[in-house]
Amino acid sequence: MGSERERIARLRSIHGEAEGVAIGIGDDAAVLGGSVLSVDAAIEDVHFRRAWIGRGASWRDVGRRAAIAALSDLAAMAARPRAMLSAIALPRGEEDEVLFAIAEGVAEAARAYGAPVIGGNLSAAREIGITTTVLGEAGPTSLRRAGAAPGDLVWLTGDLGAPALAVAALEAGRASEVAAFVRRLFHPRARIAEGLAAAAAGARAAIDVSDGLARDLGHLAEASGISAVVEIASLPLAPGLADAAASLGLDPVALALGGGEDYELLLTAPDSPALRAIARPIGRIEQGRGVRIVDANGAPISLGRTGHDHFG
Amino acid sequence: MGSERERIARLRSIHGEAEGVAIGIGDDAAVLGGSVLSVDAAIEDVHFRRAWIGRGASWRDVGRRAAIAALSDLAAMAARPRAMLSAIALPRGEEDEVLFAIAEGVAEAARAYGAPVIGGNLSAAREIGITTTVLGEAGPTSLRRAGAAPGDLVWLTGDLGAPALAVAALEAGRASEVAAFVRRLFHPRARIAEGLAAAAAGARAAIDVSDGLARDLGHLAEASGISAVVEIASLPLAPGLADAAASLGLDPVALALGGGEDYELLLTAPDSPALRAIARPIGRIEQGRGVRIVDANGAPISLGRTGHDHFG
Repeated sequence: MGSERERIARLRSIHGEAEGVAIGIGDDAAVLGGSVLSVDAAIEDVHFRRAWIGRGASWRDVGRRAAIAALSDLAAMAARPRAMLSAIALPRGEEDEVLFAIAEGVAEAARAYGAPVIGGNLSAAREIGITTTVLGEAGPTSLRRAGAAPGDLVWLTGDLGAPALAVAALEAGRASEVAAFVRRLFHPRARIAEGLAAAAAGARAAIDVSDGLARDLGHLAEASGISAVVEIASLPLAPGLADAAASLGLDPVALALGGGEDYELLLTAPDSPALRAIARPIGRIEQGRGVRIVDANGAPISLGRTGHDHFG
Repeated sequence: MGSERERIARLRSIHGEAEGVAIGIGDDAAVLGGSVLSVDAAIEDVHFRRAWIGRGASWRDVGRRAAIAALSDLAAMAARPRAMLSAIALPRGEEDEVLFAIAEGVAEAARAYGAPVIGGNLSAAREIGITTTVLGEAGPTSLRRAGAAPGDLVWLTGDLGAPALAVAALEAGRASEVAAFVRRLFHPRARIAEGLAAAAAGARAAIDVSDGLARDLGHLAEASGISAVVEIASLPLAPGLADAAASLGLDPVALALGGGEDYELLLTAPDSPALRAIARPIGRIEQGRGVRIVDANGAPISLGRTGHDHFG
């Protein structure tokens, strides 16, 4: 198997360029006329586990998080949510209450983001799958992964690491010890207002942090053809992350850099008060290629595994 | 588990009515402003089998059929295809060539129907899943399941039974004996032009035949609050179906009534030359409830199992 990047490049070539499509395959969402469209799947044993239910998580949590993860792609494009389609696959014989609880979670996200579920699909499958299509309205300027320029700062909304810590705790059966983090995992925020504000404030590129900061910044750097440098001391860790990580024997910086599913926005833009109102600077864009994580002296830090492969 | 009807009723209540949505959950597609949206999943061992590949079917066939099945929902609403999103789930370790062949099939459908794939998603899963979101442009009048009125005739485009026969042959390892039917299974037609023409000609209700004629006509009858009567002698069987069914020990009428995945349009409308140009009358709408299949003397025919549960 090739890398995901190679797979997506090949898919882009199979599907070709479509007329009238401003932004297509390979970005967070597609822009067609004034509509922004994206689809995202949450699959059992890839994105969540049945064993978590009742041990820190509920099916409603799983549904809510799946829908907000999909909405986050609209935030990264600076689009306003408009509607969703919810395709759910369930093993034969699954209790209806599981379906309805998942749907309640999706509906909660729909209400919170003003994106009602207007259609969907039910199918049998071996495992539970929640595939959410989001339809948004493009803002005046759409953000995309390409566009970052040398001189831009790298900005991040919110903080990092809480979801990854919660997943590790759920996997270890220790969710009750870090309940506040588990709550954050299942109540992520799609940064819709921040995406719109960043676009209005002149942000040049954006991506949401779904695969881990290091990897997603790499996607942005590659699409933009530039290099990104992040100062590790400037990374905003979730409050209490260091202690909670220590109690579970985990490295908080690894969780912040590689954990994934934070759904914060990574932005690039020149410094400005408008950007400072919604995000904090964590690094800068330079000529070159790739992502470097450096310490306070500018010395590179070896990252080890910094991408999020779900349970891969 | 409740019936699919009960499940959908409950999901409709969970998601509520959305403002600005002309047609929502429970119809073939949703209509939001001038946009028509639908999502459809094709899942391994539910809609197709790996064992078919190389024995009458290819992965490209599977991808093409999945995409055209999704586009068929636009036909049933009298909408024009505009774009697709393609979410594909694959077992870890699956050969990339499987993914690319499926994508080639989806792309073939995209070109044929003028609906380019503008985005998508890749995920791991236990089995292969192809979830296709279709975006269409509403025609001047959208068709829906509700609206059939006593006095309407029931109309059907094309003919019935070929896909069900092909599935049975693939399952029995006898695809090569009925190659023309297998070709039809994997090259269905989304009846886009017929849907638009029917709406223009004053059709009052429509649904595409995905679960089997008897069951889908039942959905239409229920949504419209009327009764539908179909004369069995008027059912257009696929050419050669009777002989091919006999050779496989199958009942051609059962294939035509309950086989499913025909993707023909079932319409209701008063008689007119415009309707006759695209479909043929197979029955009539009456006061009452439910679907009756009758012989030439009007005597009801017992259907046994007439719904299509995939491999359920």
